[in-house]
Amino acid sequence: MGVCHGVIHRFLPGATIIDTTHVVEAYNVLQAAVILADATPYLPIGVHVAIVDPEVGTDRRAVAITCENENAYVGPDNGVLMLAANRDKVVSAFDLPVPKEAGLGATFAGRDVFAPVAARLAAGVPPSQLGRSLDASALEELSVPAPTAEAGGLRVVVLSSDSFGTLQLGCSRDELLAIGTSERVLVSTAHARRVARVARTFADVGRGELLVYEDSFQHLAVAVREGSAAALLGASAGGIVSLDPL
Amino acid sequence: MGVCHGVIHRFLPGATIIDTTHVVEAYNVLQAAVILADATPYLPIGVHVAIVDPEVGTDRRAVAITCENENAYVGPDNGVLMLAANRDKVVSAFDLPVPKEAGLGATFAGRDVFAPVAARLAAGVPPSQLGRSLDASALEELSVPAPTAEAGGLRVVVLSSDSFGTLQLGCSRDELLAIGTSERVLVSTAHARRVARVARTFADVGRGELLVYEDSFQHLAVAVREGSAAALLGASAGGIVSLDPL
Amino acid sequence: MGVCHGVIHRFLPGATIIDTTHVVEAYNVLQAAVILADATPYLPIGVHVAIVDPEVGTDRRAVAITCENENAYVGPDNGVLMLAANRDKVVSAFDLPVPKEAGLGATFAGRDVFAPVAARLAAGVPPSQLGRSLDASALEELSVPAPTAEAGGLRVVVLSSDSFGTLQLGCSRDELLAIGTSERVLVSTAHARRVARVARTFADVGRGELLVYEDSFQHLAVAVREGSAAALLGASAGGIVSLDPL
Repeated sequence: MGVCHGVIHRFLPGATIIDTTHVVEAYNVLQAAVILADATPYLPIGVHVAIVDPEVGTDRRAVAITCENENAYVGPDNGVLMLAANRDKVVSAFDLPVPKEAGLGATFAGRDVFAPVAARLAAGVPPSQLGRSLDASALEELSVPAPTAEAGGLRVVVLSSDSFGTLQLGCSRDELLAIGTSERVLVSTAHARRVARVARTFADVGRGELLVYEDSFQHLAVAVREGSAAALLGASAGGIVSLDPL
Repeated sequence: MGVCHGVIHRFLPGATIIDTTHVVEAYNVLQAAVILADATPYLPIGVHVAIVDPEVGTDRRAVAITCENENAYVGPDNGVLMLAANRDKVVSAFDLPVPKEAGLGATFAGRDVFAPVAARLAAGVPPSQLGRSLDASALEELSVPAPTAEAGGLRVVVLSSDSFGTLQLGCSRDELLAIGTSERVLVSTAHARRVARVARTFADVGRGELLVYEDSFQHLAVAVREGSAAALLGASAGGIVSLDPL
Repeated sequence: MGVCHGVIHRFLPGATIIDTTHVVEAYNVLQAAVILADATPYLPIGVHVAIVDPEVGTDRRAVAITCENENAYVGPDNGVLMLAANRDKVVSAFDLPVPKEAGLGATFAGRDVFAPVAARLAAGVPPSQLGRSLDASALEELSVPAPTAEAGGLRVVVLSSDSFGTLQLGCSRDELLAIGTSERVLVSTAHARRVARVARTFADVGRGELLVYEDSFQHLAVAVREGSAAALLGASAGGIVSLDPL
């Protein structure tokens, strides 16, 4: 939201701020964690803020994390930062103070906690001046649920659904190939059951055809060429898709 | 819209532009006025453009307003600027020329009137060179409708409904407490009638529970934890919500 | 998307990036081409990237085009760049290399092809270092379908439908007037048939009234004052609207 940009520019005029994404579904911590980890290799080294925070107002910690490659991560300590931070190798972690104004709805941590800390880190303030040092082992961890085998097939989580209705899955191409589905695969949800082509890219199938492919972030994905796999399959982020050999 | 950014950068290359919000509902002048007044204390001192303009193309004035704290406000003279400008104490006002191209739809005031003026003000051009001086008392005023008392309860306007379905109300926490509702309150619309907890924050209630709390901009708000109060109550910006003691 | 901004900032820190629009409908090349051509006169001279790319992953070319006024255009060679580039007078064209990673879904050309090229062009790298020179006559052309005459009326394409439900048409005001409709016109689609006022601006009609007017980009447009013409007429981008004299 603009006020977070404003808070940063007030402290650090002329800061370069990139809105990585606005499409995270409400309360979907895993989806945000995946997007952050996928995006940061393409972003300048810097301070990355991610806020999906179903527990805002509880005593969940607010944290800043510094990494070997000089990326820093700022957000709630609910795992949203951890896929990216672990890959970048955590060097140190800090427990950020959260103001507790008596009687006030403390619901805008982005504006009041995370943006001010991000601006200060970006300006070169040492994180030890911004929070209390925290053992990295105390950070809330998060990982992508691994596919589970079932009757020769796989049950995999839907990580996200984009504006085209393409479903990103918590599964790699190799895991798919391991169940013997190099050409076609049965894709099913509670709502629908369809045969998809295992393809390299959209252009390998006809318009309206369902395909399974490895996306540009190396996740397995299900899509309909010029259509919506989310609509066809009745699936959305956080749901489960079954992949079975034919 | 991007062309307004472009118009500003053509005149003032490298300008810092913050999109405060894109979520104002069509034609909702009051909602925009509240968002602007709530946001500006967190933004750098500068030139703030707000355009919600149901009367575009009429002879409503376009204005620039300068304030004691050196904020300037630019937009239509329909009140959208006034909650912010009055709080920042109006110093001077200017009636901006609006081009009247014969026969052309003069519907993009943002690009053709407001963005060029904003860029010039940001570049230090005196506003007196951009428009005709106007007595501040001639500006169209706007205020948030006060809650009205009814049978021991309050009828209050919904200022906005965000993407989570949280309703922001034209009412303060003190006004709510004055009707004797420190723990629970009956919230009703034309479509639904529900009991809400009067809480400090989301974490004080269970998932799916309705709460009334003071939000981070000091407005009373109605929300469902990890759910949508707008959907539950069938309410949206501009509507009326009744708050009654149990 | 944010990663494209990131890729540009990694190569050219502090670059000014303007998001011209995010509202192009999926796969609507014509709509994007019109928006790009309409927007660029208001943007700083620079490098303009437009990606609507139904054929991504096929062997359609990726191109960079330089123009007389020093604008450059980067995107797929499917016509999306051509309304703007032709108006700015094409000087040279370049066929950009597209990485073909064996077995990988090559679906993020924005991040991997177009953003890196745009950053290099903006930094002053000569386009001849970024791609193979291409005869401009080999570029895929695109033009707005001209209105077709039918029984004294016109059948015109809907170029876009904005968030207000205003329909932008592939037709000029003069073409409308030529069928003898200076005051009122019958507007019909497969779903609805309505009389509209031929007006200069929204303020010329009452609330809820349908009007046809020349918009601020000199396209004919159909709108409902404080309402939605798209909903009233059941029309959307790519559809056909008939305009007939009464």
